[in-house]
Amino acid sequence: MAILTKMASARRLLHSPSASAAASRDFSKLLLRSLTGGSGGFREERDTFGPIQVPNDRYWGAQTQRSVQNFEIGGESERMPKQLIEAFGILKKSAAIVNMEYGLDKKYGDAIVKAAGEVAQGKLTDHFPLVVWQTGSGTQTNMNANEVIANRAGEIIGIPIGSKGVHPNDHVNMSQSSNDTFPTAMHIAAAVEANGRLIPHLHALHEALVEKQNEFADIVKIGRTHTQDAVPITLGQVFSAYCTQVRYGIARVEDTLPRLYQLAQGGTAVGTGLNTKKGFDKKIAAQVSKETGLPFVTAPNKFEALAAHDALVECSGALNTVAVSLMKIANDIRLLGSGPRCGLHELILPENEPGSSIMPGKVNPTQCEALTMVCAQVMGNHTTITVAGSNGHFELNVYKPVMINALLQSMILLGDAAESFRKNCVVGIEANRDHIDDLMRRSLMLVTALNPKIGYDKAAACAKKAHKEGSTLKEAAMSLGYLTSEEFDEWVDPKKMLGPS
Amino acid sequence: MAILTKMASARRLLHSPSASAAASRDFSKLLLRSLTGGSGGFREERDTFGPIQVPNDRYWGAQTQRSVQNFEIGGESERMPKQLIEAFGILKKSAAIVNMEYGLDKKYGDAIVKAAGEVAQGKLTDHFPLVVWQTGSGTQTNMNANEVIANRAGEIIGIPIGSKGVHPNDHVNMSQSSNDTFPTAMHIAAAVEANGRLIPHLHALHEALVEKQNEFADIVKIGRTHTQDAVPITLGQVFSAYCTQVRYGIARVEDTLPRLYQLAQGGTAVGTGLNTKKGFDKKIAAQVSKETGLPFVTAPNKFEALAAHDALVECSGALNTVAVSLMKIANDIRLLGSGPRCGLHELILPENEPGSSIMPGKVNPTQCEALTMVCAQVMGNHTTITVAGSNGHFELNVYKPVMINALLQSMILLGDAAESFRKNCVVGIEANRDHIDDLMRRSLMLVTALNPKIGYDKAAACAKKAHKEGSTLKEAAMSLGYLTSEEFDEWVDPKKMLGPS
Amino acid sequence: MAILTKMASARRLLHSPSASAAASRDFSKLLLRSLTGGSGGFREERDTFGPIQVPNDRYWGAQTQRSVQNFEIGGESERMPKQLIEAFGILKKSAAIVNMEYGLDKKYGDAIVKAAGEVAQGKLTDHFPLVVWQTGSGTQTNMNANEVIANRAGEIIGIPIGSKGVHPNDHVNMSQSSNDTFPTAMHIAAAVEANGRLIPHLHALHEALVEKQNEFADIVKIGRTHTQDAVPITLGQVFSAYCTQVRYGIARVEDTLPRLYQLAQGGTAVGTGLNTKKGFDKKIAAQVSKETGLPFVTAPNKFEALAAHDALVECSGALNTVAVSLMKIANDIRLLGSGPRCGLHELILPENEPGSSIMPGKVNPTQCEALTMVCAQVMGNHTTITVAGSNGHFELNVYKPVMINALLQSMILLGDAAESFRKNCVVGIEANRDHIDDLMRRSLMLVTALNPKIGYDKAAACAKKAHKEGSTLKEAAMSLGYLTSEEFDEWVDPKKMLGPS
Amino acid sequence: MAILTKMASARRLLHSPSASAAASRDFSKLLLRSLTGGSGGFREERDTFGPIQVPNDRYWGAQTQRSVQNFEIGGESERMPKQLIEAFGILKKSAAIVNMEYGLDKKYGDAIVKAAGEVAQGKLTDHFPLVVWQTGSGTQTNMNANEVIANRAGEIIGIPIGSKGVHPNDHVNMSQSSNDTFPTAMHIAAAVEANGRLIPHLHALHEALVEKQNEFADIVKIGRTHTQDAVPITLGQVFSAYCTQVRYGIARVEDTLPRLYQLAQGGTAVGTGLNTKKGFDKKIAAQVSKETGLPFVTAPNKFEALAAHDALVECSGALNTVAVSLMKIANDIRLLGSGPRCGLHELILPENEPGSSIMPGKVNPTQCEALTMVCAQVMGNHTTITVAGSNGHFELNVYKPVMINALLQSMILLGDAAESFRKNCVVGIEANRDHIDDLMRRSLMLVTALNPKIGYDKAAACAKKAHKEGSTLKEAAMSLGYLTSEEFDEWVDPKKMLGPS
Repeated sequence: MAILTKMASARRLLHSPSASAAASRDFSKLLLRSLTGGSGGFREERDTFGPIQVPNDRYWGAQTQRSVQNFEIGGESERMPKQLIEAFGILKKSAAIVNMEYGLDKKYGDAIVKAAGEVAQGKLTDHFPLVVWQTGSGTQTNMNANEVIANRAGEIIGIPIGSKGVHPNDHVNMSQSSNDTFPTAMHIAAAVEANGRLIPHLHALHEALVEKQNEFADIVKIGRTHTQDAVPITLGQVFSAYCTQVRYGIARVEDTLPRLYQLAQGGTAVGTGLNTKKGFDKKIAAQVSKETGLPFVTAPNKFEALAAHDALVECSGALNTVAVSLMKIANDIRLLGSGPRCGLHELILPENEPGSSIMPGKVNPTQCEALTMVCAQVMGNHTTITVAGSNGHFELNVYKPVMINALLQSMILLGDAAESFRKNCVVGIEANRDHIDDLMRRSLMLVTALNPKIGYDKAAACAKKAHKEGSTLKEAAMSLGYLTSEEFDEWVDPKKMLGPS
Repeated sequence: MAILTKMASARRLLHSPSASAAASRDFSKLLLRSLTGGSGGFREERDTFGPIQVPNDRYWGAQTQRSVQNFEIGGESERMPKQLIEAFGILKKSAAIVNMEYGLDKKYGDAIVKAAGEVAQGKLTDHFPLVVWQTGSGTQTNMNANEVIANRAGEIIGIPIGSKGVHPNDHVNMSQSSNDTFPTAMHIAAAVEANGRLIPHLHALHEALVEKQNEFADIVKIGRTHTQDAVPITLGQVFSAYCTQVRYGIARVEDTLPRLYQLAQGGTAVGTGLNTKKGFDKKIAAQVSKETGLPFVTAPNKFEALAAHDALVECSGALNTVAVSLMKIANDIRLLGSGPRCGLHELILPENEPGSSIMPGKVNPTQCEALTMVCAQVMGNHTTITVAGSNGHFELNVYKPVMINALLQSMILLGDAAESFRKNCVVGIEANRDHIDDLMRRSLMLVTALNPKIGYDKAAACAKKAHKEGSTLKEAAMSLGYLTSEEFDEWVDPKKMLGPS
Repeated sequence: MAILTKMASARRLLHSPSASAAASRDFSKLLLRSLTGGSGGFREERDTFGPIQVPNDRYWGAQTQRSVQNFEIGGESERMPKQLIEAFGILKKSAAIVNMEYGLDKKYGDAIVKAAGEVAQGKLTDHFPLVVWQTGSGTQTNMNANEVIANRAGEIIGIPIGSKGVHPNDHVNMSQSSNDTFPTAMHIAAAVEANGRLIPHLHALHEALVEKQNEFADIVKIGRTHTQDAVPITLGQVFSAYCTQVRYGIARVEDTLPRLYQLAQGGTAVGTGLNTKKGFDKKIAAQVSKETGLPFVTAPNKFEALAAHDALVECSGALNTVAVSLMKIANDIRLLGSGPRCGLHELILPENEPGSSIMPGKVNPTQCEALTMVCAQVMGNHTTITVAGSNGHFELNVYKPVMINALLQSMILLGDAAESFRKNCVVGIEANRDHIDDLMRRSLMLVTALNPKIGYDKAAACAKKAHKEGSTLKEAAMSLGYLTSEEFDEWVDPKKMLGPS
Repeated sequence: MAILTKMASARRLLHSPSASAAASRDFSKLLLRSLTGGSGGFREERDTFGPIQVPNDRYWGAQTQRSVQNFEIGGESERMPKQLIEAFGILKKSAAIVNMEYGLDKKYGDAIVKAAGEVAQGKLTDHFPLVVWQTGSGTQTNMNANEVIANRAGEIIGIPIGSKGVHPNDHVNMSQSSNDTFPTAMHIAAAVEANGRLIPHLHALHEALVEKQNEFADIVKIGRTHTQDAVPITLGQVFSAYCTQVRYGIARVEDTLPRLYQLAQGGTAVGTGLNTKKGFDKKIAAQVSKETGLPFVTAPNKFEALAAHDALVECSGALNTVAVSLMKIANDIRLLGSGPRCGLHELILPENEPGSSIMPGKVNPTQCEALTMVCAQVMGNHTTITVAGSNGHFELNVYKPVMINALLQSMILLGDAAESFRKNCVVGIEANRDHIDDLMRRSLMLVTALNPKIGYDKAAACAKKAHKEGSTLKEAAMSLGYLTSEEFDEWVDPKKMLGPS
C-alpha cells in the first residue's frame, strides 16, 4: 500500500495533468510538428490494415507510421542509428542499379537511384523516425526505407506522394526481403564505420603513441609491479607496450572484417533466394563494393547469414578487446599523471579546461575519464550483442536492430574517443623528467646492482638500513663503509638494468 | 599496406573533401546554427582559461562551450539524458530555496528558483548540449546547469546574459560541488523514473497478466518440460507464473529504492562537507523530497556516496532480474503463439501490423521481439554499470555519467517496453482453445492416469503401442482390449491431474 | 546476534566435527575406488534402458552410471558442488520424515533418514560423481541422491546393494520429482552458504574495517579526486566509506533471502503438485526449516519456482554489487599502499610472504589481488547466471546446474576471500603517519585556507609560485611577504577543513 | 590434416599412456597424504620469512606452504588447472635445456629436465596444492613449480629433499621471473588446449553436421521466421547454416592463435629482460615449440606481454562467439525435436537415458542442455576475463590466474561439450520425414505458388478460407472452384520454392 501511495504521490507531482501528462500529450504533438514543420497537415496512406494518417511533408508511408504508433519505446533518442539508414541508402541504390539489369523500368530505376543516393548521403534522415525497439527483423525500417525512397523517387519524376506510382515493394524492394536487406545494411554500416572511423582513429592514436615512445626513449624510471616499486624501465619502453596494444587492436578489428564483408543480400525470406534471380546476389555485392570501395562479397551461405549474426558478435569481441587495451592505457596514464604533489606525477598531462578555480596544476585527466567510460560502455554493449546473438530461433535471428545499434555505438564511441584522447591528451603529454629521476633514484630496488660487487648479504644490509632509516641507498652503503661515493655512482647505474646482458 | 590502401579508398569515397569531410566541417557549423537558430551570432564568455565564443541565443557559458569542443564523441545522439537534466533542475531549485535560508539574496534566489524550475520542467533542454562522454565526475554538466540557470535567472531579473550578475558558481552552485550535485541528480533522476514510469508500467503489466490468468483458469493444456510433452497444466497456471515473476520484479526494484533515496548533497568535494553549512544536507534532502513527493533523505555517509555508486549497481541488478523475467515470458509467449499451422499455436497473438502481404494469419510477435531486445540491452547496460561501478579510485568515482546514462536507459526502455507489450500484445492474447485441447488429448503422458486402473505394465504397453503406431492412447488401449471407450473417458481425465490429491 | 546464532545453528546441524572432516579424509581413497572399481570389481544395475556395470563399492545405481558415461565434460574438477549434494541430503531426510506421516513404512523411512543424514553431513560425497554439465533439470543428480540413499538405507537395514529393496524412486523420491527437488536443493544450498559463510565473513570484515576507521580517525590526509590532489580528509573518513559499502553489501544480500527461502518442493513435474498429497509442500518446508535453522517456507507459486530462477539471478545481483564494492576497496588499499619509495605509501600493508628476495619493504598486496580476482569471477558468474536464467522454456528452466554452481562459487569465493582479506590484510594495516602528514602538507590545495585571510588573488599567487618552483606553500607565501611563519601555521590548518562550518 | 598431426604430436609429447593415467590414479592417495602429513610427518623448510612445516612426502617447499596457509579460498575445487601446471613443466624443462647452453651445470640441468618432464606429463599434479585465488602474478605457483622440480631433481641425483642442493631459484628459475614464466605458461596451456582439444572437437562436430546436411538434403520442410510459418526450405539447408557457424567458429579461434603463440619468456621482472642473457628469449621459444609441436615465437614486445593479456581477452572473444553459435544450434535442435506429440517434432533425437519411467518417446534433449549450459558459462567467463584484462596496473597485470583459469575452463568445456553433443546427439539425429512433410503441406504459405496461376486475389481468398475453416489449401482452393486437384498438385510444388529462379 505504502508504495502505491508513494507512487501515486509521485505521479501526481510529476505527471499531473497540468504538468507532464500534459507535457506527454504535448510531446507527441510537438514531435509531430517538429517532424512536419507543423503546418503541412496530414495525408492518408494505406496498407493491408487499412488507411492511416501520415504527416504531409514526410516521405514515409503507412507501415512506418504504424510502427511509430505501435512502438512508443524510448522516443527520439532511441532512433535507428543514422549510419544504418545511410547503409540502406547505399543498398537500395545498388539494388536499383542491379534490378535495372533484370528488367526494372529505367525511369523508375534512375529515380530510385537518385532518391536512395540522398538517403546514403544523410539528406533524408528526418524521414526515418523509427526506434531500435521495433520488430526484431528490422522489417519496419526496411519498409521505412522503401516508402521514403518510393515517395521521393516519385516526386523526382513527378508522381504525387502517396500514390505508390513508384511502389515501395514492387520497385524499391524488388527481389529483396527485409530478411536479407537488414543484415546486408548491418554489414555495410559496420564495415564502413570500421574503415572510415575506428581504424583510422586507432592508427592515428598508434602514431601519436609511437612519437611519445621515441620522445621518452632515454628516460629511465622506476618500474612498478603489483603497484609496488620494481626494477628500472624506460618511459619509452612503457609507451611501447601501449603502442603494441593499439597496433594489435587494429589487427584484431581487421581480422573480423572478412566475415563482415559477406552480404546476406539474395537470401530473401529464409535464405533460399526465393523470388530473386540467379546471379542477383553476386551482382549486388559487387555494386555495394563499388559504392563503398570496400571488398564486399556475397555470403557463401545465406541461411547462416539470416539466422545468425556471429560476424557481429565476433567483431564486437574485437572491439571489446580494444576497450580492454584502452582501459589499461588510460588508467596507467591517469595514475602516472596523478598529483601534482601527492601522487606519482611522472607524467604531466595537458590542461584542457579549468581543473579547479583555486589550485594551479590541478589537471583532471578528463580525456582518460571519457575514454574509460566509453570502454565500460563497449564492454556492456558486447554483453548485449552476445545475448542477442545467442537467442536466434530457426531461420531468422530477430535481435537485429539491438545488435547493430550496439555495435555501431561501440565503434563510433571507440573511434571518436580514441581521437579525442589522442588530440586532447596523448600528443600533449610531457614527462616530468626531474621527478621521474628523483623517484627512480630513491628506489631501494637499485640495490640489485650491488650484488656482484659487494655480495648479496652486504647489499641486503644496505637496503634494509636505508628502508629502516628512510635514507638513500647511497647514504646507507657509505655509512656502512661498504663503498665510496664514486664507487656507488659507478656501480649503481639504472641504465645498465634495462635489458638482458 | 593493403589495408591502408583499402582504407584510403574507403575514406576517399566516403569522406572525400567534397563529401563528408566537408560534411564533417559543415556538421559543426550546422549543429551550431541549428542550436542557435543561426542568426543570433556569438558572444564572448570567459573562464579562467580565457575568452571563448558562445552562441548568442544559448544560455550556456564558457565551461559548457569548452566541453562541447573538447569532447567530440558521438555527437547529438549521445547527449546527457534529459531526465538527468531535469533532476538537476529540481536540485538547483531546492538548493536555492535552502540557500536563501542561509543568506542567499532573495532577489537572486527567487530568480534561480524560477529558472531552475524551467530546467526541471524540460523547457530548457536545448541549452544542454553536452555528451555523456565528458569528465567522469559530470562536472561539466553541473557547470552547464549552473551557467544556464545563472544566465536565465539574470534574464528574469533584467541582467544581461554573460555578465555573471547572477553567478553560476557563487549563487547557483552555492554550498555545492560537482562532486555532490552530480550523484544527487543521479539518484533523483533514477528514483523519479522508477516511481513515475517503470513501476507503474510493471504494475499495469501485472494486472493485465492477472486478467489473462483468470480468463484462462479453466483451460487444461499440455505442460512442457525440457521442451518435451509433460503432464497437464492449465493455461491459467502458466500465466500465474508470469504474474508472480512480474510481481516479484516490482518488489525487487522497490527493495533497491531506500538506498537510491539517499542523497550525496552536502558532501561537497570529498565528502567532508567543506564549504557547506551545518544542516544544509538535511534541509536540501527535505526540499528535494518536497519537490518530488519521494522520501529522499541525506546519505548517512557522504564519503561512500561520492566514492562509490553501489546503489546504482544494486538497482541495475534488480533491472537485470526484471529483464531476465520478461525475456522468459516473452519467449514463451512467442513460442506458444508460433504457427499458425506448423507451430504450437496455443495462443493467438494480436495482429498489429501486416505480417505478410500474402499469408493470412501470419502474425509476427513483434512486441515480444521489441521487449526481448530491450532485455538484451538491459543486461548489457548492467555489465557497463558493473564495470563502471567497480573502477572508482579514492574519494571520487569518475564513471558517473556512463552509469546514470545506462541506468536511465534501462529503466526507460523496460518501462516503455513493458507498457507497449501490455497494451499491444498481452491484453489481446486469446487462447486457441480447440487446438490446445486437441494437442493435450494427443499426449501420451495422459497414460499416467491408467496406472492405478490397469497397472503400470499394461499402461506402458498402451503408450508404447500408440507411440509406435501414431495412434491415440484410447485407440491403443482399446485395441489391446484393456478397457472400454467409456472407461477410458472416465479414467483419463486431465482435469484430475492438476493438483495434489 | 541473531544471524550469528542462526549461523551457528546451521553449521552445527550440517557440519559436526565427526562428520565431514573425516569424510574429507576418506575422500581420496573412495574416489580412487570409484573410478577404477577399486578392488571390489563391478556389479550390474538396471534401469529401463537395461543393465549397466557399476563399481561394487559405490552406492550409486544405473542412472548415475549412465550420466557418468554420457557426459564426459570437464571431469572431476567440474563435479556438482558438494554444498548442493549436502542440501540434497537435508531435503531427502526431510522428505522421508514427512512421508512417514503420509504412510511411508517406518523401517524404510528411518533408514532413509539416517542415510540421507550422512549425505547431509558430507560423508558420502565421493558417491556423487556427476558433473554440472548434465541434463539441465539436474535430474541425474536427483537420481544420484535417490540411488545412493536407497542403497545405503538398504545396507543399514540389511538389504543387499542394488536390490532396490529400498527403492530410489518409490521410497526415497516419494511424492517428489526432479523438477521440484533440484530447485529446492538449490535454494537450501544457497541460503545455507549465505547464512553460514558469506554473511558472517562480511560481518567480520565490516568489524575489522570499523576498527581501522576508529584507529585512523585523527589522521588528516590529502583527499584525491580524479586521482588528483584535492582537499583534506581523515583516513578514518576514508575507511568509513569502506565500512558503509560492506554494511550495505550485507543488507543487499539479506534483502534477497526472503525469495531464496521459498521452496519449490511440492510442485512435482510441472508445478501442479500431481502425485503429492495436500499439505506435503508446507510440511516439508517446515521440516527443512527445522533441519537448517533457517526460515524456509513453501513457494506460494510453484509454477514460477520451477519455470524460472529469478531468485538466484536476484541474489547473484546482490553478490555482484558486493564484488563491485570489494573491488573498489581492495584497489584503493593497494594503491594507498603502493611504494615503498615511489608510490603513495600512505598505508603499510602486512607482509605475509616474501615479496622479493632482494628488496626489504617490497610488500606485494597479494590479498588485494586474490580478492579482486574473486570479484572478477563473481561478475562473470553473474553474466552466466543472467544468461541461464533468461533462457528457460515453458514449464521448466533447464539451466539449473550451471546457475547453482555459479552462484555457490560466487558465495564461497566472496566469503572466503573476504575472510582471508580481513585476517591477512585489513587487521594488519598500519598508517604511515609521517608520510601521510608530509604529503598532505605538500599539497597546494591547502591554499584554500588562505582565501579569507589574504584574499583570493594573493592566495593564488602563492600557489602558483609554489607549483612553479616546487617549493612549499609556506615558503612561497613567506617569500612573497604575504604572511609570517606563525600566521601560516595558524591559518593553514587542515583539521579545520574536515567538515561543514 | 595438418592440425590433426599437430594435435597428435602435442598429445603424444604431453600425455603418454604410462604417465598421466597412472598419475591420475595416484592422485587421491597423494592428496590425502599432502593434507595430513600422511604417515610421513613433516619436515622444516625455510624461506626469508623463516622456518615452516611442510609434509614430508610432498616435494613443495616453504613458499608453496605459505600460500596454502595464506589463501584459504575455495579449497581443493579451486586449484590451479592442471593444464597450466603441465605447461609449467614444459616451460621449466625447456628453460633447463636452454640454460645448459648458458652454463647451467649439466648434472643439475639433466635432473631438472627429467623432473620438469614429469610435471609436464601430469605425474606430479598432487604436489601442486595452490588455488587460483592467490597472488595475481601467479608467483606462488611459479615457486611451487620451482620447489617441486628442485626437490624432485635433487632426489633424482641423490640430494636430500629440502636441502636446496638443486636450488628452486638459482637453478630451476634461472634467468626467469614469475612475471615472465606465468604468462608464458598461460600461453602454452591455452595453445595446447586449443590445438589438442577444442579445435579437433569442433572439426569433428563440423563433420558430423555436414553428414547430416547431406543426409537431409532432399527433405523439404517449412521454414520459420519470427517463430512463425514461412516459406519452404530443406532440412539440409537448415543444417548447412549450422555447419557454416561451426566452420567459421574454428576459423575465429584459429585467428587468435598467432598472438597466443607469442611467449613472454625473456622479459623477466618488468619486460626489460634484466638478468637474462641475450638470445635466451628466442632459444626458449624455439625449445617450447619443439616440445609442443606448436609454432611458438618470442613476443616482439615483452612489456606488453607482461602488463596486459589482451591475447587472452581476444581468444576468449572467439570462444564467446563459438558459444553464441552453439547456443543457437542446440536451441534449434531441441525445439525442432520437441514433442513427441505436442511439439514440432521434425527431428528425432537419440535417447541416451530414460526420459521418464512412464512415457515412451519422452526424450529429453539432455545433450542440448549440457551444451547450452556450457555456453552460458563461457559467456560469463568472457566477462570475467574482460574485467580482469582491463584492470592491470603499470608493468604487470595481476589478474593472471583468474584469466587463465577461466580461459582454460571455457576451452575445455566447449571442447568436451562439443564432442559429447556430437557423439551422443548429432550423429544420431533422424528426420521425422512424414511429419515434416505433413507440417509443410499444411502451411498456408504455399499459396504463394498460386499467385502466377490464378492471381493474387484468388490466391489470398484460398488462404483466408483455409485459415478460417482450418482446412487445407487444396481443399479451400478446390471448394472455391479455382483449380482441380491435379492442377493444385502440379502448381503447388514446394521443391520449386527452394532457390532463386
